[in-house]
Amino acid sequence: MNKIEPRTLPGFLELLPKEQIMFNEMKEKIQKSYEKFGFLPIDTPIIEMSEILLAKAGGETEKQIYAFQKGDNNLALRFDLTVPLAKYVAEYYNDLSFPFRRYQIGKVYRGERPQKGRFREFYQCDIDIIGDGELSILNDAEIPSIIYNTIKEIGFDDFTICINNRKLLNGLFKELNQEENSVEIMRIIDKLEKIGQDSVVEILEDMNVPKDTVNKILEFIQIDGSTEEKLRKLEEMNIQNEVFVQGLQELKDVVKYAKIFGVPDENFKVDLTIARGLDYYTGTVYETFLNEYRSIGSVCSGGRYENLAEYYTDKKLPGVGVSIGLSRLFYKLNELQAIKMEQKSISKVLVVPMVEDMSKPIEVATMLRKNNIPTEIYIEDKKIKTKFKYADKLQIPYVIVIGEDEIANDVVSFKNMVTGEQQTLKIEDVIKMLGQA
Amino acid sequence: MNKIEPRTLPGFLELLPKEQIMFNEMKEKIQKSYEKFGFLPIDTPIIEMSEILLAKAGGETEKQIYAFQKGDNNLALRFDLTVPLAKYVAEYYNDLSFPFRRYQIGKVYRGERPQKGRFREFYQCDIDIIGDGELSILNDAEIPSIIYNTIKEIGFDDFTICINNRKLLNGLFKELNQEENSVEIMRIIDKLEKIGQDSVVEILEDMNVPKDTVNKILEFIQIDGSTEEKLRKLEEMNIQNEVFVQGLQELKDVVKYAKIFGVPDENFKVDLTIARGLDYYTGTVYETFLNEYRSIGSVCSGGRYENLAEYYTDKKLPGVGVSIGLSRLFYKLNELQAIKMEQKSISKVLVVPMVEDMSKPIEVATMLRKNNIPTEIYIEDKKIKTKFKYADKLQIPYVIVIGEDEIANDVVSFKNMVTGEQQTLKIEDVIKMLGQA
Repeated sequence: MNKIEPRTLPGFLELLPKEQIMFNEMKEKIQKSYEKFGFLPIDTPIIEMSEILLAKAGGETEKQIYAFQKGDNNLALRFDLTVPLAKYVAEYYNDLSFPFRRYQIGKVYRGERPQKGRFREFYQCDIDIIGDGELSILNDAEIPSIIYNTIKEIGFDDFTICINNRKLLNGLFKELNQEENSVEIMRIIDKLEKIGQDSVVEILEDMNVPKDTVNKILEFIQIDGSTEEKLRKLEEMNIQNEVFVQGLQELKDVVKYAKIFGVPDENFKVDLTIARGLDYYTGTVYETFLNEYRSIGSVCSGGRYENLAEYYTDKKLPGVGVSIGLSRLFYKLNELQAIKMEQKSISKVLVVPMVEDMSKPIEVATMLRKNNIPTEIYIEDKKIKTKFKYADKLQIPYVIVIGEDEIANDVVSFKNMVTGEQQTLKIEDVIKMLGQA
Repeated sequence: MNKIEPRTLPGFLELLPKEQIMFNEMKEKIQKSYEKFGFLPIDTPIIEMSEILLAKAGGETEKQIYAFQKGDNNLALRFDLTVPLAKYVAEYYNDLSFPFRRYQIGKVYRGERPQKGRFREFYQCDIDIIGDGELSILNDAEIPSIIYNTIKEIGFDDFTICINNRKLLNGLFKELNQEENSVEIMRIIDKLEKIGQDSVVEILEDMNVPKDTVNKILEFIQIDGSTEEKLRKLEEMNIQNEVFVQGLQELKDVVKYAKIFGVPDENFKVDLTIARGLDYYTGTVYETFLNEYRSIGSVCSGGRYENLAEYYTDKKLPGVGVSIGLSRLFYKLNELQAIKMEQKSISKVLVVPMVEDMSKPIEVATMLRKNNIPTEIYIEDKKIKTKFKYADKLQIPYVIVIGEDEIANDVVSFKNMVTGEQQTLKIEDVIKMLGQA
């Protein structure tokens, strides 16, 4: 028979079991963290009607989308979890309780040109809090505490949650009569870290932004110091524009209450140059950086938006949320050997029979499993060396050997594969030991 | 703005959060059960090259598949988890340890005509044990213990794992010179429960199967009694055909060792009329029925196959596995109000502030979360009735009310939403109580 070469599409992350165990542990820790903050799970289809998914899209998104026909339907694969959330909330509005706190962890699809660390299929881990008509700014202050807890859970201490408020930028541009340039200016400011301050000035001057105005923008993005100092300097700019004033008040509230929500100062910073996606977010915006692995970029980002589902309903549904791009994060951390997961294997014990009649070894494996100890039994007829090599490769921490002697004395040989230590024990004592571990 | 009606494609299961919590609990219990038996996780892409997915397919499968083009590639969505497993094992053969025990829980796609309880997107929960060249029959005996443990875990006691061995049927047909009719006869036998014995005889006679042969087939499928009696009667048929003899020995081994693997007699049965998918399985086959909900059909099925990945590699890779069709199972059980899951809510506590300054309530919520107690705080400025109604609708079991009095006395009002009982407690005591629950 002609063989088809077994291969996986480029841009699709597929892991070996050892990495998959780490990936799953990271995913579960994120899930548990989201649940600790009371977010409800939802699981929307990966396929939706194109009409639904593309209600708002356009430009890059539309080009990247996986779209196809089946029967009479124009279908597409979701490219994020936000549009399906908007559909979900509009569709089930009457059945939901507001504020609606939901998390969703699932795969999304973007047919990008594949490059290293960019995936066409990848996991997003989203949380959002959706209000019915209105949503208190204190929700914006809770978000950093969720980010903080989640990033800690996946094993990092040295990270910074950066926040800003888009109303400050929008208010400033209004004050400076630069409203029509605001999108463009924000894009330039967003690049500040990459291109440097001189280039920013140059580009602004090329746009014929008046010198006074450029200076005022520079004054704004140069504001530095502690969070308190930044807030004070923003006050001192003495901008009277209503949007700016509102943004400043919101930022102050978020700073104040994020602290009470338990976010330490060293993990939290106001960064006035963060703008995020240009037309979606309307207030608080978030980015999160692992300080030792800054090159990865933001690992958890999001913000406040005015109206989640305006394409599907007249209801006003403001929200705030953040997302972790898990596949990319995992891939990058793995590449940098920076994954800090505890679990190395699924099985805790490998039972290795050294007898013909498998009854006793099977009984022992069954007892361990009854006591909730993940256990394998090596059933195949192979040399003992092969069996131990199997345990080794799978990083199973304990091996139980059962031969004629052990059966005669009603004991097992219990080997710690990490220390090499070997003991002869009653199976009940093994269970006690491992049950507590 | 013109609104697009928010809607989900027919045939796609989408749950409200309350049901999603139950669904996720069931899914997690299946996963934990699979892991207790030492299966390793893998997670293959939902999109694969059509060439890979359709290497074997044809007929119904090919019609149902979601296929499309992107760039120059012919792509398709996976319609099961077995073909991706075959690809995976062939692709990463050198990196895997054999026997390779893997589980995969994920969505698969079939563009079927949508009908009640049949889904176009649904979860399968698969386990397989793949041998390199050969695989001991004892693996076939372990599978029922995994099914037993898994179905118990998701809350059922009254169920029957039915096993058969296809070699018995194949050997019988050889013995009776009915090899060319074997596929057709197996299909008829598989329908026995549905159409009754008389119809089976009638159809066989219409096929010009000789009367003697029909009687021998009837003798076979009429074999009843306890498992031991069935095995004895199979012996007494005195069929010398080699395949039959081998099948009988395998069946006896599986029966003997499944018991040692801890499967109780009352949950286990030899059923000689089970044939399963006609060309894939070659030995042991499994079906599992919830006796109180027989109408659902088999909830966990599978079998032994000769060669997993013959379309991709010359390596001989025999295997044995079973699958749970989770979406359908959940849907049907939910319809029958037969779901036995424990978790009703994500949050254990709702903190309800009755003060203007949210600092204290936020501190309390943060303390609870630090102690790993899933907690929400109702931040919005609403009436107390609305806040309690929210807890009620989300079935959050405890509410903590914090007003001026509580703050003055450094206590909280702690209400059990199930019993209605209300206590005034120190927050430390609440944490102690809930931490132990």
